[in-house]
Amino acid sequence: MPLDPEDRRPRLTPAIADVRRAVRAALGEATDALVLVALSGGADSLALAAATAFEAPRAGLRAGAVIVDHGLQEHSAEVAARAAEQARELGLDPVTVVRVAVDTESPAGPEGAARAARYEALRRAASDLHASAVLLAHTLDDQAETVLLGLARGSGAGSLQGMAAESGLYRRPLLGVRRSTTRAFCADSRLEPWDDPHNVDPSYARVRVRERVLPVLERELGPGVAEALARTAEQLREDSEAFQQMIDETIEDIVEHVEAGIAISVSALAANPPALRGRIVRYVAQSEFGVALERVHVQAALRLVTDWHGQQPIDLPGCTAAREGGLLVLRAAG
Amino acid sequence: MPLDPEDRRPRLTPAIADVRRAVRAALGEATDALVLVALSGGADSLALAAATAFEAPRAGLRAGAVIVDHGLQEHSAEVAARAAEQARELGLDPVTVVRVAVDTESPAGPEGAARAARYEALRRAASDLHASAVLLAHTLDDQAETVLLGLARGSGAGSLQGMAAESGLYRRPLLGVRRSTTRAFCADSRLEPWDDPHNVDPSYARVRVRERVLPVLERELGPGVAEALARTAEQLREDSEAFQQMIDETIEDIVEHVEAGIAISVSALAANPPALRGRIVRYVAQSEFGVALERVHVQAALRLVTDWHGQQPIDLPGCTAAREGGLLVLRAAG
Repeated sequence: MPLDPEDRRPRLTPAIADVRRAVRAALGEATDALVLVALSGGADSLALAAATAFEAPRAGLRAGAVIVDHGLQEHSAEVAARAAEQARELGLDPVTVVRVAVDTESPAGPEGAARAARYEALRRAASDLHASAVLLAHTLDDQAETVLLGLARGSGAGSLQGMAAESGLYRRPLLGVRRSTTRAFCADSRLEPWDDPHNVDPSYARVRVRERVLPVLERELGPGVAEALARTAEQLREDSEAFQQMIDETIEDIVEHVEAGIAISVSALAANPPALRGRIVRYVAQSEFGVALERVHVQAALRLVTDWHGQQPIDLPGCTAAREGGLLVLRAAG
Repeated sequence: MPLDPEDRRPRLTPAIADVRRAVRAALGEATDALVLVALSGGADSLALAAATAFEAPRAGLRAGAVIVDHGLQEHSAEVAARAAEQARELGLDPVTVVRVAVDTESPAGPEGAARAARYEALRRAASDLHASAVLLAHTLDDQAETVLLGLARGSGAGSLQGMAAESGLYRRPLLGVRRSTTRAFCADSRLEPWDDPHNVDPSYARVRVRERVLPVLERELGPGVAEALARTAEQLREDSEAFQQMIDETIEDIVEHVEAGIAISVSALAANPPALRGRIVRYVAQSEFGVALERVHVQAALRLVTDWHGQQPIDLPGCTAAREGGLLVLRAAG
């Protein structure tokens, strides 16, 4: 880190204080463990790396960095090497660069394939280094963009709940921090972030949301839209978790395996409110057949429960649904 | 209704079929009752009026219309009289024009005051005429706009759930129908709708959402955004109803009145998932003190439950929260 020639430490500006406070809250009070920062060299992850280098020792933790080189852009190796050098200058140790192969022909699309390769590399690095957590630098702005992308795609809390602050190995300490703050952190700390050209390429839906949609929302509906979207994500995530907890507590009692399929008790479904009914059917189809049913499919299946008048079995993506006595039976599609 | 000179009936076009089908589904199978269409003379309510005039007799119902004259625009009386004439030509009976006084200095703002006056007039007309339902002409586009307005304002399912298809006296048969379809209905039926100048006045947030925000979303994220927003509203409304049902079923067991306030069992709150905890606190504050707590207030109150270390009572809007033994006590603000 370029240091203040006066006292050899960066000044504690509001941006630096904000990011450090967010990291401190996320680190908790574990001791003697290693946390890894997922570093791209961009402003968000560079600020996260610097704040973690500062906070981790004070929380009794060691802090390292993993830089994933996706090999998708020219000079990606140099970008990764430079980020690794910055991490070392910040005092992070160990610092690892992992080169991954991204299947750009993947059915998940190049973005999806890059994401899958990145998370796999992070998971493996954490395992190899016996790290207790991987810190990701997603900001409040990323969260707001995720909600808007979900809104356009989807239906309901599931598609709007954004990213979790904590999920398995991963922590996202900066979900409450604006991107402008991580940029200010870097400027205040005289850190030079890398500007990923992908971040301004309008062929990405996320870039269009950032550059064209959110500014229009802020202009027409007033400032604070990004914060409102992030609050919404947090609350809808809690809602989804509550419903999932209810399902976990009751699913064993209302589901049974039948020949070549799985059956849900019609009376148990009918006794639950519609929101839970739909989620139970979706959960069973997902866990039994790996199928993600859409709202329209779930509603069709539930008409066999709530509007039963002797209908034929119905075809759903990847499975069929039939009413058999007091049971709603799902079977894998032939 | 201007009729086809050939057979004296309008042709059955796709738009006419769609609107009629939606109205038919909403009318159900009640008999001998009177339903009232809330008619402004705009395309949405005019299409609703025409479809209701067609469908109601076939469902064994009588259909009338109520036109509310808010007296806020020049010529509003003529607009109302013309809408009444159209309603009579469609065969609706009775047709009533109600003139209301809108308090434009109301703290709810002129839009809020007009809405309150309108719903009060509809409620009273339904009561005077012994109507069993009032049909409102909100479309899928209105629903999508409502979700976006809630998104900018708010947090969570409560602000995103849009309008209910059925709520007390009110039915909204067209929540699944696009505005373009009601316009086509009118053109196909040779009905001439009134164009409310308020509908293009950008000083209204709703107009800005319609004219500037939704088109940008559709352009940048692909078509189908309005439909996705409406689906989301429907699903989040179900979620909210499920949580409310859970609260209704348990609230008596976990709440007790104490001196000058109301107390919630800490162990009951702690046993519930966060989504339900927060809603219980919000529900109690609302029903006891008429206070709408925001997420940040609810979270502050819940820290007395989940992070208790002897804190002082805290001030919330309109009430205070204190931990007293095994109880979280809310009292009206002094």
